[in-house]
Amino acid sequence: MVPIGGTIGILGGGQLGRMLADAAAKLGLDAIIFCPEADTPAARTAARHWEGAFNDDEALSAFARACDVVTLEWENVPVAAAETVAATGTPMRPGAKALGVAQDRANEKRFLEACDIPVTPWRTVDSAEALQSALSDFGGRGILKTRREGYDGKGQLRLGAEADALDAFSALGGQPCILEAFAPFEREISVIVARTPDGETATWDVPENIHRGGILRRSQVPAAITPETAATAKAAAVRLVTTLDYIGVLALEFFVMEGGALLANEFAPRVHNSGHWTPEACRTGQFENHIRAVAGWPLGRTELVAPGVVMDNIIGELPLLADLPDGALTLYGKHEVRVGRKMGHIVRLTGL
Amino acid sequence: MVPIGGTIGILGGGQLGRMLADAAAKLGLDAIIFCPEADTPAARTAARHWEGAFNDDEALSAFARACDVVTLEWENVPVAAAETVAATGTPMRPGAKALGVAQDRANEKRFLEACDIPVTPWRTVDSAEALQSALSDFGGRGILKTRREGYDGKGQLRLGAEADALDAFSALGGQPCILEAFAPFEREISVIVARTPDGETATWDVPENIHRGGILRRSQVPAAITPETAATAKAAAVRLVTTLDYIGVLALEFFVMEGGALLANEFAPRVHNSGHWTPEACRTGQFENHIRAVAGWPLGRTELVAPGVVMDNIIGELPLLADLPDGALTLYGKHEVRVGRKMGHIVRLTGL
Repeated sequence: MVPIGGTIGILGGGQLGRMLADAAAKLGLDAIIFCPEADTPAARTAARHWEGAFNDDEALSAFARACDVVTLEWENVPVAAAETVAATGTPMRPGAKALGVAQDRANEKRFLEACDIPVTPWRTVDSAEALQSALSDFGGRGILKTRREGYDGKGQLRLGAEADALDAFSALGGQPCILEAFAPFEREISVIVARTPDGETATWDVPENIHRGGILRRSQVPAAITPETAATAKAAAVRLVTTLDYIGVLALEFFVMEGGALLANEFAPRVHNSGHWTPEACRTGQFENHIRAVAGWPLGRTELVAPGVVMDNIIGELPLLADLPDGALTLYGKHEVRVGRKMGHIVRLTGL
Repeated sequence: MVPIGGTIGILGGGQLGRMLADAAAKLGLDAIIFCPEADTPAARTAARHWEGAFNDDEALSAFARACDVVTLEWENVPVAAAETVAATGTPMRPGAKALGVAQDRANEKRFLEACDIPVTPWRTVDSAEALQSALSDFGGRGILKTRREGYDGKGQLRLGAEADALDAFSALGGQPCILEAFAPFEREISVIVARTPDGETATWDVPENIHRGGILRRSQVPAAITPETAATAKAAAVRLVTTLDYIGVLALEFFVMEGGALLANEFAPRVHNSGHWTPEACRTGQFENHIRAVAGWPLGRTELVAPGVVMDNIIGELPLLADLPDGALTLYGKHEVRVGRKMGHIVRLTGL
């Protein structure tokens, strides 16, 4: 167990790292942010900032030795970086295995299938010909995604009946991809799950997620699903983290099909935007339970304190100060507003 | 108004500064802590730490010029330091006036009386003879308090019928004091009130406070008082901050007498331990509304999200990690545990 007053290293310096650093501080722990950038949202609230590249083994090792445990806020931290940390003897949580699975969409799908978690039909695509063949399997339509490094709708293309396979494959850089069949889903949900080194797990209520342009806009609880669907989703997420021997918080996203059947879409080996309502709306939020888990502390209770909650992202703009929206505001300390950039979020408790 | 991305200076580096810095960060603001100590709870979570003495005018001025607004977390910041900050043109909120009143118990009592807020009978005491005379006015008993610099039960003595005035006056260093008559109170409450530069005010539900050895142990809501008593207490606190032209959060403590009459005890020109339950239990907590107020932003809503709440201080010890208490834990990042030292607190929502 990391003692009170101990140090949590965090790989990555964005808003997730910022909220993790805040949660660590609330528990009397110091956070050290490791990232290549000089000025980042997380570095400005953490106890310390260690500027370094993720491929600088010497810097990573020195950083790891200064920490009681190292975690991450970015799912594309190189697997080699996680291995370098672990080689110092400082626990890396989650570890290289989870990263390796999550960073490759084909590995991710196979792992989900191996956990008995249904996914949408998919094919690996390593050439325009393979794409053509996969498209014809799926009625000429589907979503082409790079196997690596996609997020917030980047690195993917929706292909309709008229799609030219060569153009599409080239547009994503000719790199290894997968093609997913369209899932005619009714809604999207996710499960946020935490797991400790002892195998204790906790989930939160299941949020319904509304995306636009591939970016999460809103998460709300309760989702319009049956208790059975929620229970099935949670059980799948617990099965996933248990099979992965995962430590920390993980988010598993699902499509809910007509009739309530669930198809897993993807998972993120980290705290997740669709859980940003948990700190205000629950006894314990995802950031705190992630810190508790990686520190080896018991998890906090996750029940809602209100009948419902709505979380809206603030994207590509900042709120007007004179007319602040009602609800709990969190801004990420990003000094530059850009189109599509997540600047903050607002949490509104409902039904009180 | 301080813009999003702006900078809030905080005089003082303890746990209140730490929680203020966290609240500022949540609103996308950077906090700079100014204090003489090299390593403090607040410095480890703020964007920046400016090490300097409160009587170093040059350092204070440079610090103030780096901030959009300056506030404080410690009520004994010298009045001259607040004046030095204000002289740079950077707003000092709350300002020298509130500090001057609050730092001298005689001024404080007179100001409360001028606001039509009843206080316990009291006398100024500048000598053993004056103490003897005041004691005889109050039936030979009372509480002797230094006019300046007392907190958490320090700088005060309870005097019973056998008290020797010379001994007592010497024990507190022979400095200017006041003698308060004993108030045979039924319970203690406080009002946490926020006020903006525009004169907007907000109060939270009134907590009942349980002290032991002069140190707050527990605050709980609801207090066992009538709605009329709560309304009277809140109205008095609003009158106080309005008369003081106060900006920020202030706490006014009362004794509740038999029958519900209120006698003000003292006020603190800052966020207050008896409001530490507000972040978890209310739509907006005292730290966030203090930051909003000093930044010139509109206040957030203050209603409870649960029927009740209990906040317990963690004093002179740390919780056991393997058996963490139920509830929301906040630790202050103090590396040394000392008898009587406030190390953290736990907030438990009740009645959900």
